[in-house]
Amino acid sequence: MNLNFKVLKRGEKNFARRGRFRIRDIVIDTPVFMPVGTYGAVKSLSPDDLYQLGYSLILANTYHLYLRPGFELVERMGGLRGFTSFKRCFLTDSGGFQVFSLAKLREINEDGVSFRSHIDGSLHFFTPELSIRVQNALGSDIIMAFDECPAGGADYEYVKRSISLTYRWAKRSLEAHRKRDEQAIFGIFQGGIYTDLREESLRQITSLPFDGFAIGGLAVGEKKEDTYRIVSEMVHRMPEEYPRYAMGIGEPEDILFYIKNGIDMLDCVMPTRNARNGQFFTFKGKYNIRNSTFFDDPSPLEDGCPCYACRNFSRAYIRYLYMQNEILAHRLLTLHNLSFYKRLIDDIQTAIDEDRLEDYESKFMADFYKSKNTL
Amino acid sequence: MNLNFKVLKRGEKNFARRGRFRIRDIVIDTPVFMPVGTYGAVKSLSPDDLYQLGYSLILANTYHLYLRPGFELVERMGGLRGFTSFKRCFLTDSGGFQVFSLAKLREINEDGVSFRSHIDGSLHFFTPELSIRVQNALGSDIIMAFDECPAGGADYEYVKRSISLTYRWAKRSLEAHRKRDEQAIFGIFQGGIYTDLREESLRQITSLPFDGFAIGGLAVGEKKEDTYRIVSEMVHRMPEEYPRYAMGIGEPEDILFYIKNGIDMLDCVMPTRNARNGQFFTFKGKYNIRNSTFFDDPSPLEDGCPCYACRNFSRAYIRYLYMQNEILAHRLLTLHNLSFYKRLIDDIQTAIDEDRLEDYESKFMADFYKSKNTL
Repeated sequence: MNLNFKVLKRGEKNFARRGRFRIRDIVIDTPVFMPVGTYGAVKSLSPDDLYQLGYSLILANTYHLYLRPGFELVERMGGLRGFTSFKRCFLTDSGGFQVFSLAKLREINEDGVSFRSHIDGSLHFFTPELSIRVQNALGSDIIMAFDECPAGGADYEYVKRSISLTYRWAKRSLEAHRKRDEQAIFGIFQGGIYTDLREESLRQITSLPFDGFAIGGLAVGEKKEDTYRIVSEMVHRMPEEYPRYAMGIGEPEDILFYIKNGIDMLDCVMPTRNARNGQFFTFKGKYNIRNSTFFDDPSPLEDGCPCYACRNFSRAYIRYLYMQNEILAHRLLTLHNLSFYKRLIDDIQTAIDEDRLEDYESKFMADFYKSKNTL
Repeated sequence: MNLNFKVLKRGEKNFARRGRFRIRDIVIDTPVFMPVGTYGAVKSLSPDDLYQLGYSLILANTYHLYLRPGFELVERMGGLRGFTSFKRCFLTDSGGFQVFSLAKLREINEDGVSFRSHIDGSLHFFTPELSIRVQNALGSDIIMAFDECPAGGADYEYVKRSISLTYRWAKRSLEAHRKRDEQAIFGIFQGGIYTDLREESLRQITSLPFDGFAIGGLAVGEKKEDTYRIVSEMVHRMPEEYPRYAMGIGEPEDILFYIKNGIDMLDCVMPTRNARNGQFFTFKGKYNIRNSTFFDDPSPLEDGCPCYACRNFSRAYIRYLYMQNEILAHRLLTLHNLSFYKRLIDDIQTAIDEDRLEDYESKFMADFYKSKNTL
């Protein structure tokens, strides 16, 4: 599926881009942040909540949906849109990252990966063909090629062999894709922290007719200076005319860094997972609602935030609900954190439009990270 | 506070009543069912959810709010309406029932009840004056007198002494009430399963200038035939011109029975608590969403139900969310069950209006209880 991706504006002093693509009749402005709905639902939220927050594209996890409830059921129920009733857009990952990070006893060979379910220990064998078959069944709008994602500490020789395998699997993923008219497919390049291997993998993957490209294998245990070096070296060399996606990113500072280097799409569990641990984001730093100073705090989570939680409830009440284990607290904190991420991304879009991303970044970082409010 | 309660219609073949009262600018049609929001929030729902379901009056528990977060905090935050942001109406119980059912090591004397918190074992002493002080602070629209609620098995002599104490406590509750202009106060009569003691308690309590009356001490362990006998004997003898409230009721069949005997107000945790255990109500019986037959069931929880869950999601998806422990499942099942209770009560109101409550009851009972779907 052609996403009709257009770059609308480029940074003059950086590699940032403002862009836009289209899925069916839905316009996605980039840079875009995607909340994670592992099982098709963003934890604690309903589809209406997501519409109200302004999110039109969420990520669902192929590995989890493959294990439960199984892709055949989702397919019979009309794909992810029919099953979950979220009527906007889905991106699914390939399952590769979860096989490597969650599953047990995995064994890789040329054909694919055998692994045991992290839930019940059952044995499975994932191949590029099966990953694509599952994603075809899930009916997501953007699907990902099946890749190998070596750990952050993997040595040069291992990564060198791995990128060749990822290349062959990328070709097999493309060949297996049965719904090119309905589902865009993105390729993922790897290469660990080794510049020459990154260059080789980028060359290989971008030689294939994908509809977009992702930088994979970052934030998987390597040093942060290596992550940032690879991002600086590689992202702006990804093809200009296709969306560029950074998987599993991230902290607000990382989001700014990746976007400044030319990334268009990001996803991360942070705003939703941290909400469930009581953490909430504000432009003055992160706080935890369990903190006893909020016991009788009548102010909203963040002054001026337009989310449902901030329009209706005090920190005191949300803290009370949280301490009582009332699940409304999880929903309210999740709504707020996703509202924060949305406002951050909207601000970044505007800053790129007005060519003042560096100024915005300095100010944001000073307010957000320099305060003692950050946990 | 004068509720301006009016009986609009009486059953010709039974004691059922259609009525109406008013709290501030909010009209409450009776019979009315009140969902339970122990901590001020109905578990898993937001105030907006309750508005959409059409609930304008919910019950909050004085005992729980007294222990956590404490009534002083709720008072400083603007009472329950300010604290919880549910802008319609609250009724609070007196805490008496919870002291007798949840707390440990209670000791009753003329002055009040000493007990240990079920949360942390801390020692407390509840009196009629303290219960009313707390309810004044909570700012609920209807408050309840502090009574003693003996267990279902209590013997005649015990209950005889107990109703005298409840009578003295009722007078002290009235005297302690500092906000009669803002908060209606209801008296509770007791008497266990003993008709003459019920009559005596009813006479005593209704001699006092309360704004409404509740029948207490039922469904606390006595035999169901005794419950039903006392309801039949007593409810229609409660004062005609005031709302009549049955606390902690109940199952659909009990709701019908109490209303047929002249009850105007009821509350129960059943629709919300059972939702969290996976149970959902339909006019064809109760089901549990965990049942494997729902694995691939594309139908809504109940055909024709107007709730958000039924308008958007299949049993298959809600079952999946429930099995994955996704809290959206709890919210959807709670929304549905409260929608079922609302429709049941609306139907009952209409049946009373049209003087065909018996017919409605027979048909409802045949559909709801005769099927094998009831768990």
